[in-house]
Amino acid sequence: DSPASKKLCVEQKLELSYSERAKLPIISRQNRDWWSFIQKMQALAEKHNFLIFEDRKFADIGNTVKHQYEGGLYQISSWSHIVNAHAVPGPGVVKGLSAVGKPLARGCLLIAQMSSQGSLAAGEYTKAVVQMAEEHSDFVIGFICGTKLTERPEFIHMTPGVQMQAGGDLLGQQYTTPEEVVYSKASDVIIVGRGILAASDRVEAAELYRKSGWDAYRKRVGQSSI
Amino acid sequence: DSPASKKLCVEQKLELSYSERAKLPIISRQNRDWWSFIQKMQALAEKHNFLIFEDRKFADIGNTVKHQYEGGLYQISSWSHIVNAHAVPGPGVVKGLSAVGKPLARGCLLIAQMSSQGSLAAGEYTKAVVQMAEEHSDFVIGFICGTKLTERPEFIHMTPGVQMQAGGDLLGQQYTTPEEVVYSKASDVIIVGRGILAASDRVEAAELYRKSGWDAYRKRVGQSSI
Repeated sequence: DSPASKKLCVEQKLELSYSERAKLPIISRQNRDWWSFIQKMQALAEKHNFLIFEDRKFADIGNTVKHQYEGGLYQISSWSHIVNAHAVPGPGVVKGLSAVGKPLARGCLLIAQMSSQGSLAAGEYTKAVVQMAEEHSDFVIGFICGTKLTERPEFIHMTPGVQMQAGGDLLGQQYTTPEEVVYSKASDVIIVGRGILAASDRVEAAELYRKSGWDAYRKRVGQSSI
Repeated sequence: DSPASKKLCVEQKLELSYSERAKLPIISRQNRDWWSFIQKMQALAEKHNFLIFEDRKFADIGNTVKHQYEGGLYQISSWSHIVNAHAVPGPGVVKGLSAVGKPLARGCLLIAQMSSQGSLAAGEYTKAVVQMAEEHSDFVIGFICGTKLTERPEFIHMTPGVQMQAGGDLLGQQYTTPEEVVYSKASDVIIVGRGILAASDRVEAAELYRKSGWDAYRKRVGQSSI
C-alpha cells in the first residue's frame, strides 16, 4: 500500500465517520424530514466520494435482521453502503444480512469490542467474532474494535469512543485519543461522535480529528517501515 | 401464587407475544400507516389488558440507546411497556434505557440466551447478564432466555424460538416446543413468531399455543407441588 492510496483511504473513512454519527434514529420524528435528510446525504456521498455507514448494530436472528435491514420505515439497505452487527446471535445474523446486502454490493462490520465500560465483547467473545468474520469474508469487511485483531488485509478495523482527551460520560462510555487508537492500537479508522457533534465549531473539530488521525497513522507507518 | 392469578398472567403473556412478533420494523414503509397501527394496538392493549413488548434488542452504548428508545421515527418509549436489550455493551445500556423508561414506569428484559445456532450468549456471558439484571432490578424485570436462570421471584423468564415441533429455519433459528420450554426448562412465557404468523389460521394457531403453554405450566406446577 502506497502512502497515497492509504491517504485517500483514511480520508474516506474520516468522512464516513461524520455520516455515521448522524445516528439515524435520533434525527427526526417526521418521516418526510428524514427521507429528505437521506437524499441530501446520498447526494453528498456521491459528490464527495464517501461511503455511508449506518451504525445500526443489528443483533437479532437471521430471519429478523433480514427484514430489519431491508424494510420498515428506515429501509436501510437501500441507502447505506455499510452496516454493522453484533455477533451474539451466532452466524445466522451475518447470513440474514448477507442475503439482503450482498446482491446490493453492501458490506458489514462485526462488533468485536466496544468502547463502553464493562462490555461483554472481550476475550473469548472477541475471538469468536473474528472467526465468524473469517468464515463470512464475502460480506464481512472488518470490525468495530478497540485494537487491531487480525493481520488479514481484507479486514478493516474501525474504533469508536474517540476524543482528543481520554475520559468518559456518565453512561459508561470511555474515550481514547486518535493517537492511542491509530498509533498504539494499530486500528485503521477513528469513529468520532460527540467530539465533533458537541464542539462549538464542528467543521474545525472535524478537521482537527482528521489531522490527528492522519498524523498518528503516518507515525505508525513511519515506524513500521524502519 | 394461586392457579387463577397464574392463569391470568400466562394469558397476558401469550397476548403479549402476539404483539411483540408484529416486529415493528417489518410492518410498513409508510409512517402514517405505522402510527395508525400503533394506535390500534394501544387501544387493543387497553381493552384486553395486555402489555406491549417491542423486541428492539437495544445493543449500543448508554447515550445512544437513550436516544433510540425515546426518539427517531419509532418513539418506542411512548407506546411500548416493555423493551429488551443485549448486555454486550455493559451496564451503560441499562442505565441509558432506564433514564428514559423508569420515569414512564416501563420495564426491560435482558437477553441472556438466544434461540439461534452458535449464539455467543452462553456460559460466562449468560452469568454476567444475570448479574447485571440483579444490579439493576429497579428497571430490569427479567430475561430473554432458553431456561430458568434465577430463583429470584422478581424476574420473569421469556423464551423465543418456540414451535409445536422442534426444528429450525435456514438462517440458524432453532425451535423448541412449549412443553420443553415451560415444563422442562421452567421458563415462564413462550414467545411464538412464525408458529402463529405463518399458520393458515392464526387465531387457531394462537389458541393452540396458549393451551399448550398452559398445559405445560400446569404439569410443572402439579409436579412441583407433589
